Amino acid sequence: MLKSVGYAAQTSDKPLQHFSFERREPGEQDVQIDILYCGVCHSDLHLARNEWGGSVFPMVPGHEIVGKVAKVGSKVTKFKVGDTVGVGCMVDSCKHCENCDDGYEQYCDNGFIATYNSEEKQTGGMTYGGYSNNIVVTEDFVLRVDDSLDLAGVAPLLCAGITTYSPLRHWGVKAGHKVAVVGLGGLGHMGVKLAKAMGAEVTMITTSPSKVSDAKRLGADHVIISKNEDEMKAARNRFDFILNTVAVPHNLDDYSNLLRRDGNMTLVGLPAEPHPSPSVGVLIGKRRSIAGSLIGGIAETQEMLDFCAEHGITADIEMIDISTINDAYERMLKSDVKYRFVIDMETLSA
Amino acid sequence: MLKSVGYAAQTSDKPLQHFSFERREPGEQDVQIDILYCGVCHSDLHLARNEWGGSVFPMVPGHEIVGKVAKVGSKVTKFKVGDTVGVGCMVDSCKHCENCDDGYEQYCDNGFIATYNSEEKQTGGMTYGGYSNNIVVTEDFVLRVDDSLDLAGVAPLLCAGITTYSPLRHWGVKAGHKVAVVGLGGLGHMGVKLAKAMGAEVTMITTSPSKVSDAKRLGADHVIISKNEDEMKAARNRFDFILNTVAVPHNLDDYSNLLRRDGNMTLVGLPAEPHPSPSVGVLIGKRRSIAGSLIGGIAETQEMLDFCAEHGITADIEMIDISTINDAYERMLKSDVKYRFVIDMETLSA
Repeated sequence: MLKSVGYAAQTSDKPLQHFSFERREPGEQDVQIDILYCGVCHSDLHLARNEWGGSVFPMVPGHEIVGKVAKVGSKVTKFKVGDTVGVGCMVDSCKHCENCDDGYEQYCDNGFIATYNSEEKQTGGMTYGGYSNNIVVTEDFVLRVDDSLDLAGVAPLLCAGITTYSPLRHWGVKAGHKVAVVGLGGLGHMGVKLAKAMGAEVTMITTSPSKVSDAKRLGADHVIISKNEDEMKAARNRFDFILNTVAVPHNLDDYSNLLRRDGNMTLVGLPAEPHPSPSVGVLIGKRRSIAGSLIGGIAETQEMLDFCAEHGITADIEMIDISTINDAYERMLKSDVKYRFVIDMETLSA
Repeated sequence: MLKSVGYAAQTSDKPLQHFSFERREPGEQDVQIDILYCGVCHSDLHLARNEWGGSVFPMVPGHEIVGKVAKVGSKVTKFKVGDTVGVGCMVDSCKHCENCDDGYEQYCDNGFIATYNSEEKQTGGMTYGGYSNNIVVTEDFVLRVDDSLDLAGVAPLLCAGITTYSPLRHWGVKAGHKVAVVGLGGLGHMGVKLAKAMGAEVTMITTSPSKVSDAKRLGADHVIISKNEDEMKAARNRFDFILNTVAVPHNLDDYSNLLRRDGNMTLVGLPAEPHPSPSVGVLIGKRRSIAGSLIGGIAETQEMLDFCAEHGITADIEMIDISTINDAYERMLKSDVKYRFVIDMETLSA
């Protein structure tokens, strides 16, 4: 077995702490990666604290991974030792259902294998994530990363980036479109950058007047303060697409009303309690739709990484020492991060 | 002024009764129509009883109109005396907003002029609908009707037909698609016929085991009884598109779960109270969407009528004497109609 170290939650109510564990030795089709950076996603916190149920401990969180290939199996063809690579939310899927066949592993009918807290196909044990010095992943779920980018800023692209890129692409956002992004956090700040790079006219909608200048720095052409009724009213029927990144329950109608005819609002945040029921009348009145979207497939994640390399896009991050991960969780709960914590894995001792 | 007779609600709490009134004389661009048949839509009842608010009395309901052209204005080019024509839910719109320009008068940003209970542009009075011997409509809102069809059965196409045709077309239903229609009433029975004619494999989903044979007679390939949990579970991830015609509050997740990846459910029924809030997780899990849709534009209504003529499609109707309209309303409340009442205007005395 491969010796690994990392940070793990041992139970749902204790801080994460240093943890030594074992991973499978890389098989014929596996890539062993030395991890350089791992982003800190809000779902890491939800799962480490078992807030969604189904958490298995000990748990090593982390699914925004960038590193260097340390070893490859004999049948690996896409990667070689020394390559810079990424791993996102998935490390495997059934590979034979309709959705996997279509390249949508995230919608695998048999459930994809998550990067952590999933049952590992090869061993029957649990998968351990990226708050760790290394990871072993089947090559089909490893992504190429362009070395020209700041690699710490690339890490969050593997979840926050693809989660926002995929619905923007799916709903056909392009030059000339008016796009609104609701909520300026880890997902929202990527939504602004990506929609702007796709050529859209981008409006950030936020509750916080304090975020106006930052939203514009990130590329937003306009900012609407959602608590300002006049601004919201003036924006009715304006947007072709709304990317709603807010995961706390809120009145969806306030935003649906801003969609023009045939406009779509895609929700990428999963609230713990339901949103108030959206008005059918608001949907019917302009043939609007509300959709959900979950990360992206492997091919699309590669496309996103290539798009970001081409456009020089990375996440805005705050680098942390892994020993401060529990403080980072507390700050994340207060939205005190611009806009993603990324763990520098050099700070992990053996 | 043009002398008209019909049936009107004088107040929200009284039965409809015989009513003599005046309409505008046809202007240069108007078509005067002698009405042969008028379908009875559930919204007639809602509006006559002021259940949605905003009803103005006296009110002559009716927006599923088929008749013969009796007179045309000097600048009318599309119709001549004797032509068989139809009028649906709209008799005018602003004609200069983005949606009107695009042929979506039903989504007119300034509000379309409804066939009844709207302020008439030309006179500033109220529009009166099709429970009447005649009507005067600007030619742009008059539809050609093919005489080869049963004209009484054509009347409901002007609302129930276009309301179901438009979302089926908009969401790209075609041969090979699996389509479910929820609810077997006036709208649902048209949804089955139209989806089938578009080449889809059609499943009717109904609460009533008593409707199975009728659903199959109408063209459904399969019928699911929604109260049967096993049947519903077996149908998960099956449908490309679901047309939901049910206007009473119900759990939308039960149906959204039946959509395959990227499937859409369009709601055409407007409940008086909100549906339970749909699960964001159900949407996110397979990139599903929920939309609304309102009737259809004039060009699309013509396309629908032509499609029905080509495929020999009309509504299943029960013809009534206009003097029994109040009884018909009571039976409609009990869903005791297969599937649309149509008033034979010959029964209207002067």
